[in-house]
Amino acid sequence: MTGVLTIVGLGPGDPRYLTPAAAEALASATDIVGYGPYVDRVPERPDLRKHASDNRVELDRARFALDLAAKGASVAVVSGGDPGVFAMAAAVFEAVENGDPSWRGLDIRVEPGITAMLAAAARVGAPLGGDFCAMSLSDNLKPWEVVEARLRAAVAADFTVALYNPISSARPWQLGAAFEIVAETRGPDTPIILARAVGRTDERIRIVPLAEVEASMADMSTIVIIGASTTRLIERPESATPYVYTPRSYGVRP
Amino acid sequence: MTGVLTIVGLGPGDPRYLTPAAAEALASATDIVGYGPYVDRVPERPDLRKHASDNRVELDRARFALDLAAKGASVAVVSGGDPGVFAMAAAVFEAVENGDPSWRGLDIRVEPGITAMLAAAARVGAPLGGDFCAMSLSDNLKPWEVVEARLRAAVAADFTVALYNPISSARPWQLGAAFEIVAETRGPDTPIILARAVGRTDERIRIVPLAEVEASMADMSTIVIIGASTTRLIERPESATPYVYTPRSYGVRP
Repeated sequence: MTGVLTIVGLGPGDPRYLTPAAAEALASATDIVGYGPYVDRVPERPDLRKHASDNRVELDRARFALDLAAKGASVAVVSGGDPGVFAMAAAVFEAVENGDPSWRGLDIRVEPGITAMLAAAARVGAPLGGDFCAMSLSDNLKPWEVVEARLRAAVAADFTVALYNPISSARPWQLGAAFEIVAETRGPDTPIILARAVGRTDERIRIVPLAEVEASMADMSTIVIIGASTTRLIERPESATPYVYTPRSYGVRP
Repeated sequence: MTGVLTIVGLGPGDPRYLTPAAAEALASATDIVGYGPYVDRVPERPDLRKHASDNRVELDRARFALDLAAKGASVAVVSGGDPGVFAMAAAVFEAVENGDPSWRGLDIRVEPGITAMLAAAARVGAPLGGDFCAMSLSDNLKPWEVVEARLRAAVAADFTVALYNPISSARPWQLGAAFEIVAETRGPDTPIILARAVGRTDERIRIVPLAEVEASMADMSTIVIIGASTTRLIERPESATPYVYTPRSYGVRP
């Protein structure tokens, strides 16, 4: 087999976040496979075939891409952010493990990207400056009990926590439940960052204390960052937005 | 004050990982401040002043950069990887909070970058495909008891764990102790990824089962990724390196 499959991280919406390595992978592809809005972000070329799908069929999409590559195509599977973080890379490898044995001989590469929590953190300061966890709040692929246990463990150990997939019309109550779990341990002033559509023209970023946060402040395009007990606001003059950061030191005098 | 200070993520060593947004920030700077090897990665320009320091003086470096910006310079503070992840951004905001009150009026921006765990994960497959934590194993800025408690919590809750700053000549035993903590809970076949100097010419990546891993396999330039209980190897034909991935689903049939 001579096909190549590269799983490419497009980063947040702004093309200024697309790495040159990722851009090269897109430029050398014969076929682009992915969720429609991500496929749309790849520049058109006369010899480029685009295969867009909706966002519910990750494994089917992965198998389709692997089959194209096995037939000799140079396929780029595109993801927003980083493909290895709650995105397409794990779906592709799951398809490889459980699919046609010949797929294991394919040259499968991953091109990393700026994942949403890094872009969101950069917009407000350095909230991920200490130890942190990244969790998907979706209970489509794991039981809610596992989500809840992990969130409790992360909060108890005082990690900053980035929540991917916080809410959707099919999962309306989980984010509110997560905030309640956090409030059992963290103080009411804990900064919560709600970063929507980072890098896109409709970007909106809010910093809200835990006591005032509501699940309705987030939507499918939002990443939520929950501060650690040490995460702090730096107030600024003339009502400029405060900076938010988590100090590097913990429990010792810096 | 008219100065600007941007904390710029250079990504891993390969310039193909530097985002266009970060490259723009470097191109518009009058002064580059940072640890020597990172400053060296910024292309020379006749009108560009470079201020390199060693890697032990982050707060001093931050104050120096803030002072330059307060005097009207356009300063880029450079970090490898992402500046918000165990790098310079938190040090700069710590200096702002505790320093000259006028610094709060400065325009301080952060340009995100590809952090080491994302680049390392991409090289081997998708080990961060499920929930994960990122921790610094250094006990310079937090007591070892905190490191240990967080690692135990992360392992007990079955997160994949990325360990930054795993070892140095001044911290020789901590990584071995961390592997012992992990081995109390995780099985001997748990994949451990040791990724050294990702994106540099001297890159070296090993995948070793927990039962065989040794702290001496890592150095200061290594990031260590500890698989979750579900992290798996996909064996490949003709002794190709196996792929490593963590399935998206957990405790449910996919």
